Amino acid sequence: MRFAKGHGTGNDFVILPDPDGRLPLTAAFVAALCDRRRGIGADGVLRVVRSAAHPDATGAGTAEWFMDYWNADGSHAEMCGNGVRVYARYLVESGLAAAEGSWTLATRAGVVPVTIGPEISAGLALPKVYSRSTAEVAGRRLAGTAVDVGNPHLVCPVDEPTLDGLDLSRTPAYDSQIFPAGVNVEFAAAGSPPAGADLYRRMRVFERGSGETLSCGSGACAVAAVALDHAGLGTGVVVVDVPGGRLTITTTDSHCWLAGPAVIVAQGELDPAAVLGPAPLLSAS
Amino acid sequence: MRFAKGHGTGNDFVILPDPDGRLPLTAAFVAALCDRRRGIGADGVLRVVRSAAHPDATGAGTAEWFMDYWNADGSHAEMCGNGVRVYARYLVESGLAAAEGSWTLATRAGVVPVTIGPEISAGLALPKVYSRSTAEVAGRRLAGTAVDVGNPHLVCPVDEPTLDGLDLSRTPAYDSQIFPAGVNVEFAAAGSPPAGADLYRRMRVFERGSGETLSCGSGACAVAAVALDHAGLGTGVVVVDVPGGRLTITTTDSHCWLAGPAVIVAQGELDPAAVLGPAPLLSAS
Repeated sequence: MRFAKGHGTGNDFVILPDPDGRLPLTAAFVAALCDRRRGIGADGVLRVVRSAAHPDATGAGTAEWFMDYWNADGSHAEMCGNGVRVYARYLVESGLAAAEGSWTLATRAGVVPVTIGPEISAGLALPKVYSRSTAEVAGRRLAGTAVDVGNPHLVCPVDEPTLDGLDLSRTPAYDSQIFPAGVNVEFAAAGSPPAGADLYRRMRVFERGSGETLSCGSGACAVAAVALDHAGLGTGVVVVDVPGGRLTITTTDSHCWLAGPAVIVAQGELDPAAVLGPAPLLSAS
Repeated sequence: MRFAKGHGTGNDFVILPDPDGRLPLTAAFVAALCDRRRGIGADGVLRVVRSAAHPDATGAGTAEWFMDYWNADGSHAEMCGNGVRVYARYLVESGLAAAEGSWTLATRAGVVPVTIGPEISAGLALPKVYSRSTAEVAGRRLAGTAVDVGNPHLVCPVDEPTLDGLDLSRTPAYDSQIFPAGVNVEFAAAGSPPAGADLYRRMRVFERGSGETLSCGSGACAVAAVALDHAGLGTGVVVVDVPGGRLTITTTDSHCWLAGPAVIVAQGELDPAAVLGPAPLLSAS
């Protein structure tokens, strides 16, 4: 089975080229593939399949390729901003899509425009800033803003430029009435915007179900939306530094464009039987 | 750059075939390669190089291949029992060594005999049981036995068959006078030996510098040595189940044979420039 591995600002993926949708992917196999010691290891799997060959690619229109995204636990997520960017990089490097200009990609959350340059930019839906709430982390209570980016976020401004003092080793406490399905919590510190940007934030994120991660594309879009909101701006450019690198969020009247590096690190053949292997005998904490 | 990824009971390695010793490996590159999100991800790197082509392979004798082992942080370790087994599996699958019988492999800790079957067995040096000590884990004080397997171990018998109740999320406290360079701590529960074995242990391990891991070959040898010692046996077969699988340790008058599964999961080409990438911007905890 052919595969590639790539990441966007430290959000990493196993990519499975399957143009004709013939791979019999199962949740168990995806979970084994994402296991970081027994499999290849990744935050998720991107199956590269033609829209015409996948039943979920309804409404793909002229988008030739469909991003069949799987979480590391074998479940589906509708959207993953860094996933779109890495998927697009793979198509470009493999000669399956144009290496410059703009084109569209089908996803379970609809068709996403993509722009190719030195970085790859994905045009996501505009976040909706909708409520105030609070998070509690290591005994500290922080005020925040609830944002819907397709998934739920709580953006908490923090007055510590480096964010080094935050202990994110445990799940922050949050209001389960506002976030009945859990929430991704971002901690954001303001700073001086670099040339070309209107606003600047450093961010760390605690992802629902994963813990602290190096990057979260939708979380960076949520942070940018709150930053613009606080500045009284409807549109603009926000640079967001995450532990895994620099993301630039450009908000227009129609889209939240998520731009940043996306690289393919390796390609090869994997052995599905070796990946599946025997089940573990004991649980480790 | 060609690579493979494999593991032995969940102890995983990036394998770099380099028969003539031409790869300019550096600590920084090895660390980037072992990074689980930006690189390939592994507990260590095994460079597959001919003994004649590596300056550290002194005394290799008739051992054609030298295991150039690197830890995930880019430092060298002299020996890694599961590493020997995965390295041997790679040689066999690549047609570089005989697929049955016994042969020898050169390592920084000397020449190691290897036996190939459905499982792969590595003949390590006999552990030395040498002192009593204690560990403290999550407020519980446990008596244990110090064992030298080339690296330091403290084996603590635990009277809990499943070992599920142990919280190994933090480094156990130990006596730094007995273990000035730190220690790997094993927690071992006795059980009924399966057919062919003299003794049986379940084990969890907290590895110095790594935290809890799925497997530790030298740790399993230490547990087996203490089990034999407590049973008044000089030699014998001890089955040790670790979270990553089953290891069988056969102690003879000359060697501690570590046997278990070893698989190659994937092979391919990696892009060294993409692996090295830019440095992270922020620290995550």
